[in-house]
Amino acid sequence: MPRICTYHHAASLRRLKQCNMNRKDLFYQIRKKQSYLCIGLDPEPSKLPAAVLSAADPVLAFNRAIIDATRHLCVAYKPNFAFYEALGPAGWETLQQTIAYIGQEHLIIADAKRGDIGNTSQAYARAVFEHLSADAITLAPYMGEDSIRPFLDFPGKWGVVLALTSNAGSNDFQLSPQENGQPLYEKVMRRCMEWGTPDNLMFVCGATHPEKFRQLRSIAPDHFFLVPGVGAQGGDLQAVSRYGFNSTCGILVNASRAVIYAGQGDDFAEKAAAAAQALQREMAAALAMFLP
Amino acid sequence: MPRICTYHHAASLRRLKQCNMNRKDLFYQIRKKQSYLCIGLDPEPSKLPAAVLSAADPVLAFNRAIIDATRHLCVAYKPNFAFYEALGPAGWETLQQTIAYIGQEHLIIADAKRGDIGNTSQAYARAVFEHLSADAITLAPYMGEDSIRPFLDFPGKWGVVLALTSNAGSNDFQLSPQENGQPLYEKVMRRCMEWGTPDNLMFVCGATHPEKFRQLRSIAPDHFFLVPGVGAQGGDLQAVSRYGFNSTCGILVNASRAVIYAGQGDDFAEKAAAAAQALQREMAAALAMFLP
Repeated sequence: MPRICTYHHAASLRRLKQCNMNRKDLFYQIRKKQSYLCIGLDPEPSKLPAAVLSAADPVLAFNRAIIDATRHLCVAYKPNFAFYEALGPAGWETLQQTIAYIGQEHLIIADAKRGDIGNTSQAYARAVFEHLSADAITLAPYMGEDSIRPFLDFPGKWGVVLALTSNAGSNDFQLSPQENGQPLYEKVMRRCMEWGTPDNLMFVCGATHPEKFRQLRSIAPDHFFLVPGVGAQGGDLQAVSRYGFNSTCGILVNASRAVIYAGQGDDFAEKAAAAAQALQREMAAALAMFLP
Repeated sequence: MPRICTYHHAASLRRLKQCNMNRKDLFYQIRKKQSYLCIGLDPEPSKLPAAVLSAADPVLAFNRAIIDATRHLCVAYKPNFAFYEALGPAGWETLQQTIAYIGQEHLIIADAKRGDIGNTSQAYARAVFEHLSADAITLAPYMGEDSIRPFLDFPGKWGVVLALTSNAGSNDFQLSPQENGQPLYEKVMRRCMEWGTPDNLMFVCGATHPEKFRQLRSIAPDHFFLVPGVGAQGGDLQAVSRYGFNSTCGILVNASRAVIYAGQGDDFAEKAAAAAQALQREMAAALAMFLP
């Protein structure tokens, strides 16, 4: 059953209603849209199309146009906080309004990569889950259990822990063999699975490591994976899907720059929709072929 | 020679002037004040004294009173971003005004524990170094080189990488032995020292691991360590100083709650000053005894 929530345009009511998206809701949306696409809303001022520059808040105008053009093609949006913080206090307002505009039918992932000691993580959790009404937040695991738990303990919300990321630097520490020969990312996943469940814990697993997906899935059979690195970073959607799927799909593939900057002209939103649609079609085909 | 900068009350000029604090400046301040104290500005709404609640911005009023009462006793301030983000967009303004109020004679460490792929880390660096004019930022190393370098590459600024943190969760991954028997934190430090120098890279080393300081110092003889965990978390200032000092002091000991919440009454600022002064006296004694 989908969530029923009629007030999805008002941020304040959204906060009060606490309409969260659980695993069942997410899989419902995936089947309905034949898509497991997550779109990264990472607005860089230098890349905004001229068409939005005269708006009172160009970034918000850009985001709204992208959201309107793509909301039927994706199941999640992921604003990366860095791009809003780089705008100063006004950026925080833009982020809040962007999240409110997305509404209830998408999983909203705050890509903030937070992690701090216990009382500080609690403050971050309040900021992201209460003030901004996000459904999920990305988390850096280096500081261990008390940095992760306050997010998992928030009822109805998700923590998305970095396991094996898509960037070049993932080789520096994440792939380091531990004493028992396991790479660090595997230790991170196994420990985090003691603290959370498939209903409140996801992992970031980069599409630039497609050869690892069979093993990643065997470590965490039931958890959702958030998969960046398709598109601008060159990851392989088919391999990731083939080896990453579980019985509730279990993967969300993120595309940011490849979708939102698909066009620079007045038709930037149509171009973004076309790029998202191409990914959605690949996903529909993968679901038909590989979903167990 | 100290920095000479007369415009230290105007945030905008501060930004324009780019008066950064280098290692020599920092040691000058340490010798002058006989203190290597960093005060954590982590305002929690529930803990603010009644005396500031009627101010237009109670958190800013609180911070200003704490700063006025302690600025002669410490060499650095470290606002933890979580406590400002938890206040919504207004919190970002408060943070900006707090940093502007501190001025030029203290190292300002943005305790944000950031770390993301390269283009995103660049956006964070702009947010923290340009918009907020902080001198330094704490960084989570899990994502490796391209997540750290954009901060180190910012001229005149510092990256402060988490090595061995003060919280219980530091046992989960940081102390994990790698294939060669070294703990992960040692690998992190050695790799980061390939990317930065003692002039732009510090490490977070928690005071709750005093027995490790001799080894930490042997890994990184010349780098500054930011040392949280004295005070509320129970770390040992004398042991940390004895084994942590290098020829330019090389440690900044942070206290947050133990100083800023030393009193709850109308005299909260005096109580904070007294707590800071007690730490400063211990530090003066340690400098006399242990500085090589």
